[in-house]
Order: sequence, then structure tokens, then C-alpha cells
Amino acid sequence: MFNDLKIDRSRPVYLQIKDYLKELIFSGLLQAGMRLPSTRELSAVLQVSRNTVIQAYQYLEDDGFIRIIKGQGAFIAFETEDTAHTGLQLDWEHLMSKYALMATELDVEKKELKWKKGMLSFKSIAPDPELFELEDVKRAFLNRLACEGKKLLNYGYAQGYKPLLEYLQTYMKNKGVKIEGKALLITNGFTEGLNLVIRALTKPGDQVICENPTHNTALKIMRLSGLEIKGIPMSLDGLELKQLEACLDQQQIRFGFLIPSYHNPTGLVMSPEKRQVVLEIFQKYRVPIVEDGFNEELRYSGAHVAPLIALAGESNNVIYIGSFSKILFPGIRVGWIMADERLIAYLESIKRAHNIHTSSVDQGLLYEYLQDGRLDKYLKKVRRVYRQRHQMAVALAKTYIPDCRVWGEGGLHIFIELALNLNARQVLDECYRQGVVFMPGDIFFTDRSGENTFRLSISRVTPEMMETGFKIIGDVVKQVMKQLN
Amino acid sequence: MFNDLKIDRSRPVYLQIKDYLKELIFSGLLQAGMRLPSTRELSAVLQVSRNTVIQAYQYLEDDGFIRIIKGQGAFIAFETEDTAHTGLQLDWEHLMSKYALMATELDVEKKELKWKKGMLSFKSIAPDPELFELEDVKRAFLNRLACEGKKLLNYGYAQGYKPLLEYLQTYMKNKGVKIEGKALLITNGFTEGLNLVIRALTKPGDQVICENPTHNTALKIMRLSGLEIKGIPMSLDGLELKQLEACLDQQQIRFGFLIPSYHNPTGLVMSPEKRQVVLEIFQKYRVPIVEDGFNEELRYSGAHVAPLIALAGESNNVIYIGSFSKILFPGIRVGWIMADERLIAYLESIKRAHNIHTSSVDQGLLYEYLQDGRLDKYLKKVRRVYRQRHQMAVALAKTYIPDCRVWGEGGLHIFIELALNLNARQVLDECYRQGVVFMPGDIFFTDRSGENTFRLSISRVTPEMMETGFKIIGDVVKQVMKQLN
Repeated sequence: MFNDLKIDRSRPVYLQIKDYLKELIFSGLLQAGMRLPSTRELSAVLQVSRNTVIQAYQYLEDDGFIRIIKGQGAFIAFETEDTAHTGLQLDWEHLMSKYALMATELDVEKKELKWKKGMLSFKSIAPDPELFELEDVKRAFLNRLACEGKKLLNYGYAQGYKPLLEYLQTYMKNKGVKIEGKALLITNGFTEGLNLVIRALTKPGDQVICENPTHNTALKIMRLSGLEIKGIPMSLDGLELKQLEACLDQQQIRFGFLIPSYHNPTGLVMSPEKRQVVLEIFQKYRVPIVEDGFNEELRYSGAHVAPLIALAGESNNVIYIGSFSKILFPGIRVGWIMADERLIAYLESIKRAHNIHTSSVDQGLLYEYLQDGRLDKYLKKVRRVYRQRHQMAVALAKTYIPDCRVWGEGGLHIFIELALNLNARQVLDECYRQGVVFMPGDIFFTDRSGENTFRLSISRVTPEMMETGFKIIGDVVKQVMKQLN
Repeated sequence: MFNDLKIDRSRPVYLQIKDYLKELIFSGLLQAGMRLPSTRELSAVLQVSRNTVIQAYQYLEDDGFIRIIKGQGAFIAFETEDTAHTGLQLDWEHLMSKYALMATELDVEKKELKWKKGMLSFKSIAPDPELFELEDVKRAFLNRLACEGKKLLNYGYAQGYKPLLEYLQTYMKNKGVKIEGKALLITNGFTEGLNLVIRALTKPGDQVICENPTHNTALKIMRLSGLEIKGIPMSLDGLELKQLEACLDQQQIRFGFLIPSYHNPTGLVMSPEKRQVVLEIFQKYRVPIVEDGFNEELRYSGAHVAPLIALAGESNNVIYIGSFSKILFPGIRVGWIMADERLIAYLESIKRAHNIHTSSVDQGLLYEYLQDGRLDKYLKKVRRVYRQRHQMAVALAKTYIPDCRVWGEGGLHIFIELALNLNARQVLDECYRQGVVFMPGDIFFTDRSGENTFRLSISRVTPEMMETGFKIIGDVVKQVMKQLN
């Protein structure tokens, strides 16, 4: 005993001795009442300074594993209990709720083909980390911590960190939102935002509307919440208004989930005129709209288009969910909901019951980072980069992928529609074998249609990667077409 | 127009001009097609440099609000839409789900007496921010960001940040947990952890067991999840084992929620022998235990007591929820679940559907902070401070509050039981008038009993505050007793 400890000089040595002795205690080799070697003895055996051993013994005493009796030595104080019991093995699968089974079943991360090292990936629409400004982030953190670090490290408010709430209020006002009577709630990103709204407005079995196709995470959350989803078809011209109205007229709809700007996955932008009409239709049937602000900041060209919540003016039926995760730092998980203040009060209580509040440190960091026009400058930079990639992606897709329609005006992705008789999963399977991965389109559809579509993310790829990858995709499509003829 | 802008020289001036012009556009004073003053004119009117105005115009163009035509000037590009519509006002209260109404009803923050400036508060068990080591936090952040900042700022994994997972695995192993076959999931604090477990193991209407009294947030979450709660009475000796076994025998229990160490609110520690028996009883009925690690780190004296998950050995029926929020930084909202790896896989998918993952920045910061034995050193410090406060609180409560029983051996609070005929809320109301606030005990009880109890937090108070506050409480208790006689 004691001389089989291999000491790693790059880590604090007293910690290693402490952990080693704990292991001996847990394993039963050192039992309650036994005396440890003196600090002098152990330091000689381990060839470390006596002080190091003294320190290790002190922490062990502090943790309640040994008792040091003056003049007598250190004794094991912890009784290893017999942990055999029945060796009970529960079968978790049979104990799982339907919710848990469904969450696993709907988990795209687990069910879809995974990126492997060396592959060309057009799958994730995470932002390009090379665009992050690390030095600004560090400075923002240090500044904010210097201002009110102790406050930020302790419990905060469920609604959010006040300075950030005020910043976002002005930010939304600058999008044209009439902020009187409205309030904000900070969330752990868009995903939590949508979950909170669904918890507040629906119960399982309720009906909701969304665009078909739509954001796959939103679809997952709605399905998992037991909602009956009415998908309204999209053409290249956007949402089909007649079907929207018919659906609202015939069904009891709890809300409509819409992505008016740079829609995921199609990349379409709803025109100002169409926004007006959509608003009027929802208002006629007194149904709330949940507006996903998603990619709104990634406008590449053209005039500013006001979000639905701005166009709605004094009306209170639009619930806006915002996030900077597609441009700034998704790693900090901060999003927000803006809506009627009476609705926000309910959402706040649900949020508090779910996780008390969103990290104050992250909120403080984001707030400080956004100061002094830094967001504007950053947006200017990333819009330029992503616009170039987007334009190139559209051009390359048209060049290499035969007989396809390329959807979308912006965002971090393009959406490809193949001829109707082609199956995108068949294309994906062959591409995957050749080292290219992307997102099959059917996961975005409410009715599992869209089998001839797929989404290509362009947020983290170079022109060379697109050239190589799209060429492989195009060749596979040709090959599949040939097989069909 | 234009000359009513008051410029604040402490903020970037171009931003103020930009925001001001946006307001004019949204208000309809500047309409599509109108020409803005030249940059030369506007700089003269506002008495700012011409470059500042040029910058403001460029950002406005970038945002799509104006169009700059060379040689002609800057024109408003954004059409203000008529936002009148129906001025629809939905009545949210009637649209709310039962869940939302209940979350609000059960929201202690909204329903209980609030601390007001100048009051003595014994209400919250948040840690004392004066003990936080800000410089260490800053250093940890900078180090981690320097190592892998771009990775931390982008999307991470639902299960958690790998280095932190590895750290916590060793940490749990050092508590004696047999880690083979077990896995970890990082959560947004304990609160999310318990929500995830409930979502995985139960559906509304299911029955669960807990100690009576128990942690009020846990009670809230269980009630909100529609669970039927079976409270097992606690005596000064802890959980009543006969009633526990009778309950497990007669009911279909989905899990038992237990706080074996420094139980909230009573402060009791379950003895190693009792832990063995409790484990055996749950294993006999093949029922999972959800163990709240809560205050485990705040052991003030005595031998180390192994958590249930350690005592369970190879058995897989204990789900441990851990958190450093009561000692380290609750502001960052990082907790963890350790359980059978098959259960963790389900929980991971639910977590991903709820909020994708916990902030990677916070996880990285915490990981780096915990290195080099910093947690041990920090624990040593805070244990000493809190132990002193706890001892003093017990002594002062016994001195000033007549005819009371003081529960508990540790933690950040003491629990007071008055004579049976006294009502703690009546005491609280009068204390509140005299500037003292604390947590009434009934909110911790499954059956709304405990009307003669209350909890006094001692985490953020000086000896003087305790002396003054407890004296007021004691005097009020005497007064109420007199009224009853």
C-alpha cells in the first residue's frame, strides 16, 4: 500500500494523495479506526515534502474521511458500508414516460447520419466561429464583472438581467415595435422560448398552425407537446393564404407559428404586403401568432422589412421569439420573448419553475458586448461574409446539381428541390459514402413529405468545400436520375 | 425636424443619430421616397462632424431603412405600413393553459411577502456573494477562453462540456460512487434537473413520495407536473420508516424524492445506518430514488456520510441531482444529474428538446475554476464562515424565541418549530411590519400543515442582523402567545 501511487508533477500533489487515500477508503483497504502512516513516513515513501502530506491529511479531515488526534496520529473516520444490497437493476426503458420515449425518437442528433472526421458537412447552421471576436468577448466579460460581478454570480431574476432587458427593449423599438404594454422575458435560446409559449397556450391534443415546411426543432417541440400540427403549404411565393384562412375557419387553432424572415428551411422572406394580409387573417380569427425572429438580422440586401410584431401595432396577438444564436454566440444560450406584458407574467412564472432564470453571467456578458454599436459593426461584417457564401452557394448549386430548384433569398443555408421522383435520402446515403453530409428535407415537413428536398448549410464552409461538395452531390443526383430512367 | 435631437456625448453619436432617424421613419414623419438632408447639412444642424453623419447613414442603409444614390442623396426606403388593423386585444388569462395558471398560482416569488429596502431578510438561502472570489473567476474565464474560446461560444453538446463531465465524474467517484455504467448530464441547475427526471419518469396523475416537509421548489415542480404527492412525515430522527414502507407497499410509486444531507428546510442529516435501511426499502419495491445533493458540500462537522448513490453500489435505482449553487455561483446555473447511463440517454434527448444545452461558456468557466483544488480551498473557507453563522443562529434563536424547537445540524438555514397553537404567518405579518422577513414553514409541507414552523436563512446575515432580527421575531412570538392566553 501507499507506494503504488504514481505522482503527476503537473497537478497539485496534495490533491493526488487525497484522492488516492479516498480510493483506498472506499475500496475497503483502509477501514474505520485504522491509523494512517505519519506524515513523515508517508512523505518518505512517496518522496514528496512533508507539508504536502500534511495538506492532504487536512483536507481529508475537512471532508470527514479521517480524524487527526494530536500526539496520536490520523485515523480513518469513514465507515465503508456494505453496498451489495440486492444489486437492483431497473429496466429504464419500461419505466420511461411516453414523453421520454418520443423525445428520443424525435431526436435528430441521434437518428440522422452523423458527421465524421474528414467529411464535408452542409448539415448544421451554427455560425462560423472564425467570425467571433474573442478579444471583445473577453473585454466585455471583464468589464461587466468589474461593474457588478458579485451580483451576476448570485441568483438573478426570472424575467432577466435588467440592463439586457432595457437594451432589448430599445432594440425591438428600433424594429418599429410599439413597446407600450409589452414586456420581455429572457430565455435559454429560441428553443426554451417556444417551449414556454407552448406550455402557456396549449395542452396535448390542441391544434396549431405552421408553415409546411418549417424549422425542424420547432416541429419536434410541437410534436413532443402532443399538438396536432396543421401545416400550411408554402410555394415560392410563400404561405398559401387561402389554405391558411380555411384552416383558421374550420379548426380551433391555439396559435400559428411563423418564420417570416429567411424562413428555415426555404430561406423565403415574406413581403410587407403579405405580412399585412397574414396579420389581418389571424386577427380576424383572434388567434395568436408566434413569430420566430430567427435569422431576421441576416438581411443581405433590400429594404428593411418590419417584423409582424411591429406591423401589428397596438394589437397584442403577436408573440415574438428572438435570438442572436445564428449570428453571435449560440454557446451562451440567450434568447428572448417579447409579447403583451400580461402574457409575459405567466411565462415568467413557468420559466421560474423550469430553471429559475437564465445565467446572469451570460446575460451580463452579452449586454456588455452589445454596447457601443458593437452589434451593428459585427452584423456589417458577418452579413458581408455570409452574403458572399450564399450567392456562391446558389450559383454552384445551379451549376452542379441537375434539374433542381434553389429556394431562398438569404440566411445561412439554401434549400434544394429535386425533380419529384427523386429521393433525397437516397442521394444522401450515396453522398455520405463519398464523404458529404447534409440535412434531408423531409424532417422539415409536417406531413413527412418533401422527400425530394434537402437543405445545404453554408455557414461554415469555404468556396472550395462548396465546389467539391456540391459537385459530389450533383454527380450522385445524376447517377440516381440515370438509374430511374 | 432634426434639431430636436439631444446628443449625449458619452455614447457613440452616430448610433444616436441612427436611432433618432429610425424613430422618425417609424412614426411616419419620414416617408418612403423622401430625401434626407445631405450629410453636410445635417452635421451643421446637429453640430457634429460630417463623418459621424456619414457613418449613421451607412448603418441605416445597411439595415435597409434608407438607400444612398450617388450624386443624388439618401432616400427613405422603408414603407411605414398602416398598423391600425383591428387593434385586437386578446384576453390572455382566458387563453392560458391550466399549467400556466398553476405556475403563477404556485409562484412563491409572487405570492409571498417581498423583501423591501431596509428590511432584515432571513428569506433566501442564496450564498453570500462577499465570499465569491471574483479574481479567480476572471482568471478562469480568460484561461478557458484562451484555450478554446471559439468552441465554447458555438453550439455544444446536450450532455455537457466534456472536460466538466470528466471532472464531475471524478468528483462523484471521490464520494464513493461506483461510476461504471453510470453517466452524467449537465443541467441548468437543480431545478431543471428535477424537471427532466419528472418528465422522464412520470405522467400527470402518477404518485411520488417525498419527505414532509421538503424543498418548496421541488414541491412546486411536482405539483405543477400533476403528480400526486405522498409526504412521509419527518421527526427529529428523520424520515418515518414504517410509513415509508407502508406507502410503498400500498401505492404505485414512480419515485421517491429525498434530501438526505442538510435537508431543506429541517437541516437534518440522515445517518449512514438509516440510509442503508431506506435504500433497502426502496430496492425491495423496485422504486427509483431521486437524491437531492443540494447542500451536501456544506458539511460542518463529523465524519463524511456517503450519498445514497454511493451506498447503492452497483444498483442502478438512485438518480443523483447535484449543484454547487448553494456554495459557488448560482448566477451561472449549472447543475448535474448522475444516474444509470441508459436513463441519462433519455434525459439527454429531453434536455435537447427543451433548450439544446446548458451554456458552454458557463460550463467552461466552472470547469476552469474548479481546477487545482480551488473547490477544496473555497469549501474550507465557506464552511468555516457558515458554520459560525449557523452556530450563532442556533444559539440566538434559543435565546430570543420562546418555547421553540430549533431543527437542523447544518446548511444555510435553521428551521423553527413553535408551540402547536401558534401560527407562523401571524408572526410573519407582524414581523414584516417591523421590518423583518422570513419564509413561513407551511410552503414546505405536502399537506399545507407546519403552520407553526418557519425557516430562517443565515447565509447572508451578520451577527448583528441576527441579533436584531431574532429579537424582533422573539418579541412578536411572545406577544402572539400572550394574545392566546
